[in-house]
Amino acid sequence: MTKFGIVGYGNLGKACERVIKSSDDMTVTAVFSQRKVTSPFGTLTADYGDIEKFKDEIDIMLLCGGSATNLTAQSNNVIRLFDTADSFDTHALMNKHFSEMDKLAKEHGHIALIATGWDPGLFSSMRVLFESILPDGDTYTFWGKGVSQGHSEAIRKIDGVRYGIQYTVPKQEAIDKITEGGRPVLSVRDKHERVCFVVAEENADKEKIKDTIVNMPNYFSEYDTTVNFIGEEEFLRLHTAMPHGGKVIRSGDVSGKAMHAEFSIKLESNPDFTASVLVNYAKAALKLKKEGKTGAVTVLDVPVAYLSDRPYEELLGKLL
Amino acid sequence: MTKFGIVGYGNLGKACERVIKSSDDMTVTAVFSQRKVTSPFGTLTADYGDIEKFKDEIDIMLLCGGSATNLTAQSNNVIRLFDTADSFDTHALMNKHFSEMDKLAKEHGHIALIATGWDPGLFSSMRVLFESILPDGDTYTFWGKGVSQGHSEAIRKIDGVRYGIQYTVPKQEAIDKITEGGRPVLSVRDKHERVCFVVAEENADKEKIKDTIVNMPNYFSEYDTTVNFIGEEEFLRLHTAMPHGGKVIRSGDVSGKAMHAEFSIKLESNPDFTASVLVNYAKAALKLKKEGKTGAVTVLDVPVAYLSDRPYEELLGKLL
Repeated sequence: MTKFGIVGYGNLGKACERVIKSSDDMTVTAVFSQRKVTSPFGTLTADYGDIEKFKDEIDIMLLCGGSATNLTAQSNNVIRLFDTADSFDTHALMNKHFSEMDKLAKEHGHIALIATGWDPGLFSSMRVLFESILPDGDTYTFWGKGVSQGHSEAIRKIDGVRYGIQYTVPKQEAIDKITEGGRPVLSVRDKHERVCFVVAEENADKEKIKDTIVNMPNYFSEYDTTVNFIGEEEFLRLHTAMPHGGKVIRSGDVSGKAMHAEFSIKLESNPDFTASVLVNYAKAALKLKKEGKTGAVTVLDVPVAYLSDRPYEELLGKLL
Repeated sequence: MTKFGIVGYGNLGKACERVIKSSDDMTVTAVFSQRKVTSPFGTLTADYGDIEKFKDEIDIMLLCGGSATNLTAQSNNVIRLFDTADSFDTHALMNKHFSEMDKLAKEHGHIALIATGWDPGLFSSMRVLFESILPDGDTYTFWGKGVSQGHSEAIRKIDGVRYGIQYTVPKQEAIDKITEGGRPVLSVRDKHERVCFVVAEENADKEKIKDTIVNMPNYFSEYDTTVNFIGEEEFLRLHTAMPHGGKVIRSGDVSGKAMHAEFSIKLESNPDFTASVLVNYAKAALKLKKEGKTGAVTVLDVPVAYLSDRPYEELLGKLL
């Protein structure tokens, strides 16, 4: 029985709890938050400041803090007491996060699985695999159709916006160019478009809202962006789910022959899938730890055999 | 510089030589065959009986023997002298091959990478990964469109057949049922059809050839099979390439939400792709060996980070 702790009780933390609760060989010892929270499963909830008291009752702590800042502060603290698993996703700070966690984890004899979800995570694993088996080639990553939290928040901060959501949508023409056998050079604009749904406040200047969105640097200005104004009722009915998806494609040549490899996912719920990846890789990380591994690791270090609960003979006989 | 030896010089052995020759940090020391062979690259060719003489000049031996019987006999011999990598693909004998190679490899301080191509190989890895991250789900493997050597040979053995080839073709309706969000129960007939092209001898009884094919137990009788009689010129023009492909799909649920994961490949040349997978995993197996690992291993034991020649910091910074 693997005993988990969950730090942070937003979408991801709650989804991790659901994943763990669906299995007979996993349990959640406690959920830790800086806020007062209640679990629909009746899981013990505790203050984040009290984690040390649970030192002997938790095998691995899932770090589900909301923002990158929050997560880093927590991870650098929690790793001193527990093995940890996180889904840190700020690509620019990845090496920094890895080396900090690696140092602390080794000092305290723990393992720190970092950056584990689907991107970074499964997609990273595919990018490395594909590049390695098809060294003469190009890799393309597409995200969506799905909700980008960052872009949605950027919309919601605009004056006159009551509700706003942004879908990242891969352009089918770009995907077709690759799968039809090419290795096209694609700009940011060629690969994805951004589709926004906005509920404006009464009397708000919609034209101004639209202009602010489509011209917003970093977020929207480099893309073809569509802004749809809709009513509150429609928004709440159609735009509160968290579907997502995406694909990694490698188009390459081996000895002059065209080869394509593609990994794709289609998710009804982004946080529930991310949670399933995080929880199952966390279990695998504990197997690495059992063999003496300490320090930081990523999905790139976890052999897939470690993810499975089946005996190796059964993997060979039934799945190989 | 990794120094390879190649045992067996059919389609796969030749493709491995091409892959190795395309890279600056790999070389082929010698090709070994029981027949008299010549390399288009001018690689040294030697008799299979002389492998021992090359003991200090080869880092890993690629076992590319044609038949399963041939391969097993060779692998059980070569592993006493060299680290080895093979693409053994008889699923029913996998545990036997693994345990024989594991014992011999450990006795002689070698590593034996077995069953490494795309199926078994990459597809196996995906089946284990997908099942582990989506435990509540169903896995579907589709092969094709591509040539099945076994089925083509079965056709060529029929009286009155001059040339014959068989394409395994996945049924799009079956794939659609899964990707539209279902977890259908699919029979053998539901998943694939078999399309044959035959050049008959003059005066052969075509109706009889067709009946023999479509009713052949194990090979064709469980499938919808189409037999097309064509002329020799058309056969040689259109049906001598070795394209292949396929996909592994997992359709499942996490906390009541539908999730799909899919891995697919489309290959202009089956042997060239298999060779690229085999050669690059063989290099990774040598890294495991360097860390002290001996015995048999499969793709399931190789962390993807070991496949890449990039420094780990670069993987984290650029691909994660």
